[in-house]
Amino acid sequence: MPVLHNIAQLATCPRGNPQNDAGLIANAAIAWEEDIIRWVGHAPDLPPEFRNEPSIDCEQRLVIPGLIDCHTHLCFGGWRGDEFALRIAGATYQEIAEAGGGINSTVTATRAASLGQLRRKAATILDRMLELGITTVECKSGYGLDLANELKQLEVYRQLNQAHVVDLIPTFLGAHVVPKEHTGSRDRYIDLLCNELIPMIARENLALFCDAFIEDGAFTGSEARRILSCAASHGLGIKIHADQLSTGGGAELAAELRAVSAEHLEYISDEGIEALAQSGTVAVSLPLASCYLDEAYIPARKLISAGVPVAVATDFNPGSAPSFHLPLAMTLACIHQRMTPEEVLNGVTTVAARAVCADDRIGSLLPGFRADLALIDAPSLNHWLYHFVPNACLKVLKNGKWI
Amino acid sequence: MPVLHNIAQLATCPRGNPQNDAGLIANAAIAWEEDIIRWVGHAPDLPPEFRNEPSIDCEQRLVIPGLIDCHTHLCFGGWRGDEFALRIAGATYQEIAEAGGGINSTVTATRAASLGQLRRKAATILDRMLELGITTVECKSGYGLDLANELKQLEVYRQLNQAHVVDLIPTFLGAHVVPKEHTGSRDRYIDLLCNELIPMIARENLALFCDAFIEDGAFTGSEARRILSCAASHGLGIKIHADQLSTGGGAELAAELRAVSAEHLEYISDEGIEALAQSGTVAVSLPLASCYLDEAYIPARKLISAGVPVAVATDFNPGSAPSFHLPLAMTLACIHQRMTPEEVLNGVTTVAARAVCADDRIGSLLPGFRADLALIDAPSLNHWLYHFVPNACLKVLKNGKWI
Repeated sequence: MPVLHNIAQLATCPRGNPQNDAGLIANAAIAWEEDIIRWVGHAPDLPPEFRNEPSIDCEQRLVIPGLIDCHTHLCFGGWRGDEFALRIAGATYQEIAEAGGGINSTVTATRAASLGQLRRKAATILDRMLELGITTVECKSGYGLDLANELKQLEVYRQLNQAHVVDLIPTFLGAHVVPKEHTGSRDRYIDLLCNELIPMIARENLALFCDAFIEDGAFTGSEARRILSCAASHGLGIKIHADQLSTGGGAELAAELRAVSAEHLEYISDEGIEALAQSGTVAVSLPLASCYLDEAYIPARKLISAGVPVAVATDFNPGSAPSFHLPLAMTLACIHQRMTPEEVLNGVTTVAARAVCADDRIGSLLPGFRADLALIDAPSLNHWLYHFVPNACLKVLKNGKWI
Repeated sequence: MPVLHNIAQLATCPRGNPQNDAGLIANAAIAWEEDIIRWVGHAPDLPPEFRNEPSIDCEQRLVIPGLIDCHTHLCFGGWRGDEFALRIAGATYQEIAEAGGGINSTVTATRAASLGQLRRKAATILDRMLELGITTVECKSGYGLDLANELKQLEVYRQLNQAHVVDLIPTFLGAHVVPKEHTGSRDRYIDLLCNELIPMIARENLALFCDAFIEDGAFTGSEARRILSCAASHGLGIKIHADQLSTGGGAELAAELRAVSAEHLEYISDEGIEALAQSGTVAVSLPLASCYLDEAYIPARKLISAGVPVAVATDFNPGSAPSFHLPLAMTLACIHQRMTPEEVLNGVTTVAARAVCADDRIGSLLPGFRADLALIDAPSLNHWLYHFVPNACLKVLKNGKWI
């Protein structure tokens, strides 16, 4: 039963705590056995049975739960660096999409890539996420947009979930955009999703969740209702990309369908906030997308005041958020979403775990939870999120083993 | 004469180029001898005398000049992470300063620290800057604010400039704020600067530049004129912290005094822009400060259109910009200052070199310039600044030697 001691500050991030209480313990110690945490508390209170166990000196640093990135588009072909320069010159995300760039260009590149190419590329990203202290990653399909290529992305996730130490939570996002070949036959594409893909994916356990992007240029609320209701009837959890670029009723639909999470929400209405509070849906904020698009940030203070839990994730994708740097998203959430460091830390641990229905086993450093944690080269949570460095994570423990 | 080959893209960043032309060469090679670049160009044109030299394969990556961070407050005691949480809760930078935090709290910590403590702390930061590809750093005093402690900071820079491979450009910023003990005797403090510190610092070559912070709560324009005119008469170059939080005539004063650079400029007036264009002063933009303070960014497009060269720097300091991550500042300059990747790269190389009067020897990868360069793990400049990773710098060459 290994023990960490001389921890300046340890964040337990208890499930169900108020968002602004990350359960910080000064002068802490923590012990685990195999992959489960057995004890956590003030160092002087460490029970006698742990005192002769192998012990690591944390030299007055910060210990946090392994980070959970609860919204990524991990698997894709190609990159879109040249679109970045176009956006700087003033083109909007939607204009670029209409000119043949945007999501559809990544669809073309993803379809052209082999399963092995996609798997190697995603594995490299996972390696680097792990170095940042990230131990669980939600990952969406949605760059295949036909039967073979959506299954190819989900198969990448299935294989990586076995081969890579980071845990993956796969989400089916066939309803990302309507693929080019179905521009004139939207209903046929939705039929394909509802009649073939969703039943097959549910049957083969290739995804835990189904997501849909409600936006001009993507799907309408009523189209999303049909797709997500079908997914729910097949036992998949529901997520929605809602209110990112305009107020479109996505939050209200998320509440109506009792979605696990509503994601983006930069333009959520007051009615949408009230609806999410009633339904217990997690709001997933994506500050890197707001930053890269030079667009609004989520009204996190209003959401938290209304009682909506707010997660923080990267939205890692090759267009609107081409970075997997979750600690950068955290610092931006502090600055631009006016979330306190404790609110943000809960947002990437227990609240993020709730957004993937796993907050009973990950996201908290408490007895019985999984021994996933990160040792951060900072004396406190405030210092970590304030002094942005390339990577402050010194060591990662995953399933009770040092990486 | 070592050679780098198989470079996907090399940025020469010629001195005096239009800001949007970084002199990019596809399929490039570069050769140097001792600490000086001897040849750069298209790989097929490599002259015969270089063909049998030791050669390193860059595997289709990007090569750039060593980065120049032309505005930092490198040496300081303590940190101010807890102020960060206060700012998130809504306190302004000026309110925190008035409540006893802010610059004056760093002055207290810097005075309390020994020269050795300050040197070790700054050396650690320089190590990490170098890992990011930064080979030259401008560094300001201004946390001592009395004779002994301003000299202590400048002595840290003198010692580090000898001991550390990164080149330091020291700037005297005694006119950062009026120290607490002189609140009721501002003129006596300015007398101290003009009659004792500036002559001594110039005589002992402890700084190349003198800077002054013109702002409510810092110095007035007429106070700055007196201090900087004195510095100029002692042979120091002039820099000004101007128009950061309000429009205060700082840019116009910079032009009047023919300052080398005017820094911040978030609230520069149209008249200020015109004045800088006339005087040939470099505008130093500090996007990390704008980001951390959730304040305006510099109007870079207006400045560039008017013919003012715009550098990009971190402003690394423990209050308003507690990060030395220059590539993050670069990505933010693209997104929020609407500078193209080529404009930004020039802004951290040849234009930054001009801001420290060194653009005749650093900041360009051309024959005769110093062999300071970085190998970046990206296939192009656009890709590097778009796909933000913890640190994309793979190797750094300083004075012709690999670090």
